[in-house]
Amino acid sequence: MAQIRHALNTKRADDFAAWYQEVISAAEMAEESGVRGCMVIRPWGYGIWERMQRLLDDRIKATGHDNAYFPIFIPLSNFEREAEHVEGFAKEMAVVTHHRLIAGKDGGLIPDPEAKLEEPLVVRPTSETIIGDAMARWVQSWRDLPLKLNQWANVVRWEMRTRMFLRTSEFLWQEGHTAHADEAEAKEHTLRMLEVYRAFADEDLALAVVAGEKPENERFPGAVETWSIEAMMQDGKALQAGTSHYLGTNFSQASGIKFQNREGSESLCHTTSWGVSTRMVGGVIMTHGDDDGLCLPPKIAPQQVVILPMLRDKPEDEALIDYCEALRATLASQHVLGEPLRVLLDTRPGKAAAKRWDYVRKGAPVIIEVGGRDMDNGVVSLLRRDRLWDADSGKPAFQTPTREVAGQTVPDILADMQASLLTAAGERRDENLTRGVADFAQVEQHFAASKYPGWVEVQWSKPTGEALEKVVERLKEHKLTIRNVPMDAAPVDGSCIFTGEPAVERVLLAKAY
Amino acid sequence: MAQIRHALNTKRADDFAAWYQEVISAAEMAEESGVRGCMVIRPWGYGIWERMQRLLDDRIKATGHDNAYFPIFIPLSNFEREAEHVEGFAKEMAVVTHHRLIAGKDGGLIPDPEAKLEEPLVVRPTSETIIGDAMARWVQSWRDLPLKLNQWANVVRWEMRTRMFLRTSEFLWQEGHTAHADEAEAKEHTLRMLEVYRAFADEDLALAVVAGEKPENERFPGAVETWSIEAMMQDGKALQAGTSHYLGTNFSQASGIKFQNREGSESLCHTTSWGVSTRMVGGVIMTHGDDDGLCLPPKIAPQQVVILPMLRDKPEDEALIDYCEALRATLASQHVLGEPLRVLLDTRPGKAAAKRWDYVRKGAPVIIEVGGRDMDNGVVSLLRRDRLWDADSGKPAFQTPTREVAGQTVPDILADMQASLLTAAGERRDENLTRGVADFAQVEQHFAASKYPGWVEVQWSKPTGEALEKVVERLKEHKLTIRNVPMDAAPVDGSCIFTGEPAVERVLLAKAY
Repeated sequence: MAQIRHALNTKRADDFAAWYQEVISAAEMAEESGVRGCMVIRPWGYGIWERMQRLLDDRIKATGHDNAYFPIFIPLSNFEREAEHVEGFAKEMAVVTHHRLIAGKDGGLIPDPEAKLEEPLVVRPTSETIIGDAMARWVQSWRDLPLKLNQWANVVRWEMRTRMFLRTSEFLWQEGHTAHADEAEAKEHTLRMLEVYRAFADEDLALAVVAGEKPENERFPGAVETWSIEAMMQDGKALQAGTSHYLGTNFSQASGIKFQNREGSESLCHTTSWGVSTRMVGGVIMTHGDDDGLCLPPKIAPQQVVILPMLRDKPEDEALIDYCEALRATLASQHVLGEPLRVLLDTRPGKAAAKRWDYVRKGAPVIIEVGGRDMDNGVVSLLRRDRLWDADSGKPAFQTPTREVAGQTVPDILADMQASLLTAAGERRDENLTRGVADFAQVEQHFAASKYPGWVEVQWSKPTGEALEKVVERLKEHKLTIRNVPMDAAPVDGSCIFTGEPAVERVLLAKAY
Repeated sequence: MAQIRHALNTKRADDFAAWYQEVISAAEMAEESGVRGCMVIRPWGYGIWERMQRLLDDRIKATGHDNAYFPIFIPLSNFEREAEHVEGFAKEMAVVTHHRLIAGKDGGLIPDPEAKLEEPLVVRPTSETIIGDAMARWVQSWRDLPLKLNQWANVVRWEMRTRMFLRTSEFLWQEGHTAHADEAEAKEHTLRMLEVYRAFADEDLALAVVAGEKPENERFPGAVETWSIEAMMQDGKALQAGTSHYLGTNFSQASGIKFQNREGSESLCHTTSWGVSTRMVGGVIMTHGDDDGLCLPPKIAPQQVVILPMLRDKPEDEALIDYCEALRATLASQHVLGEPLRVLLDTRPGKAAAKRWDYVRKGAPVIIEVGGRDMDNGVVSLLRRDRLWDADSGKPAFQTPTREVAGQTVPDILADMQASLLTAAGERRDENLTRGVADFAQVEQHFAASKYPGWVEVQWSKPTGEALEKVVERLKEHKLTIRNVPMDAAPVDGSCIFTGEPAVERVLLAKAY
């Protein structure tokens, strides 16, 4: 086997965190903005987010939700209403106190002391309270229910330590909010949206997530139940990729979301909320990326195919571009994975080989290079991003189909790559998920033994309150957290590794982002 | 002619401002949020904005722009760099001064004095300066140019008097920002984007706008040239519906957007910016709305066709729903105006007649009611929103095609309605545009003479500086402003109505939103 010269400087095995940063920078996905904790999402990164938005938005609308838009500012008093919610959120938030600037003594600008707000406004960290106010106005009778809303928006949580896409002070997300007539329907809806997230994560992003309920200590502030999908990154850590909350009547009580039921008396609504954010982009990087950069599932690639003619600034270029344009047109006229195929013919100045590596780092699923000799032979040189290298030669694994064959088979290659990335993610997750651990000492041993130890599934007695706190503290010593209680876990057959009591369910333990 | 009982309480002719508010409320488009100057955009209103976004985004991408996302917060110091820009913006803005809340003495929450920001952050009123910083990092050589970016975002300008959609403290928009190698290319691009806006406004929104350059006093802060599209509302006022700015090297100087040109020396970029916002929704209301509510051009209607079975909570309902469902499926399988037809079969509880008026007020282009008798006769009852009334009978002008004919002809009706609304808007604009005014006294007379006086086109000598200020002051006395210098105006043939000097161009005078 020949030595391969990878397209990045850092390898995943050497320094996963540095590798992650290098992918983001090399793929031109995002960068620090100079504004504390806020990133600039560059066109390639934003193009991925736009693709995610489109696919998830279709799923959210297909389940009967309408999009709406609510104010970015939330009056301070809203946060004083729902006690647990305050406790969870009323800490690190951006607070607007003035509405005007004037020149200060040194000539610079300062907030105008004359323009101080009577009540400070908080830049929304989430919109439960303000959407709750609107729901209270809109819901009067059982006929108005269920009320199913979604919002695409930016939110701000003042994070002390930030990491691009994974944890930023400002991030983009969707937040769904629904109101229902009773507990059963609201709980059912909480799980329906969890399933929407699971399907989106697996079928569109190829993440191979595990869906399950969060333990009490990991619940959203104010929620009765919190469910999540968890994805395993290539360093074995877990990424919470989406959450769905059953909020009981906590928020409807605080906001007064009431309705006249069929019997004519007044009831409180049962509400849900659920969200997925730009951190999902980080999950895609750490699930599919490799030592050559990003690798994108075709469904979310801004461009699925990039065609690079090897231009030489000579008159022959014209014929070469025509040759490539015919392939582009053939591909663009086709559908793949339910949508028109996205193909770019890149004729900007620059060497094709240099551009090839740019698109490899950006994770474009299929890269097609065409030189004069290819044209003369009626072929093209085709690279599939997830099978980049020929292990024997150590060189890029170019296929050289005829242009006609390429025009016919590229959609199949893309569909195969989408499926194959999910299979790979699922296999990796299963290989790195350790079961059958008998006691906590084995857990400690497991996580101490390797750099990327994956997840461990254990059985527990589902302690609550102080007993749970003790478990959480003990896990914390090893930087471990309980991810969730997988919905499809095997039945329990032993005792709790923490308390020794009879186990009631299985939980996943992992280090997490 | 019989008396018509319109679906709104307020008539345009009686109180245009009150009518506007009633449309927004009756069509469930938006409402006050309780947060100062910020509105809640309800699903129907947001659905219209989503349609606009999709159509305009396609046009922006088709002209070679990529979307990206920049931080919502802008450091104060950014505003101190470009002098004119500061002067124009550094006034009424939301200023973030703290990043944490704590409990105050009275138990309520207060900004934590320990968590005061060293440098206050401004919630973006527009993103020239922060995008300029990014451009300075991204542009190194002539090969990086042109750089063509667009952002969809929320922005905040602390407005004292707000009106839903037209002027709100927070609003949604797109802002395009481009950098070019020279003045000619940047100016050409400024006009290209103006043309994109004109085409969007006319072809998608049916507004019949006038494109032209703004006079010096109406320029965007820091711009060298500002161009606009102006739409005439039904009260004769003008609405600035979109602007495109050539910024010269003002912002590239301030942010350091430089490049190495082909000769190897360093040059400043020439930049442009351009934006369209949710105020466009207000423009649609005031252009197409009538005394029955909103009337939507089919291209931007969230639902183009609404089918209302007259359900009676009886077993026969099932057959009726099947009958309607077949029509829905026939329509949904077709394309109209370049996209899949959007049709809703509404089977929620409630009387069909009450729902009909709800959808009339919401401006759904085609409403189809189906009762048991219609089904027995194989027909449907069809209303076209822009031809709602039968003037003779004073009743809704139902057509009763067979279901098969409806399935075939509805796409044509929608396409015809799209065209017909543009024709109507263009005719109304031309009828209310007065030309051939000889002096300012005639202008005064014209605007004093009627309630909805429309626009007046006059010739002027294009005064600048103090001379222009005098003109602006004089117009202000009559609440008039100069809208723009129409690109397709006739050649001048007389003298300036303000200065008496030889005229050099024609300008539009109007009251404006």
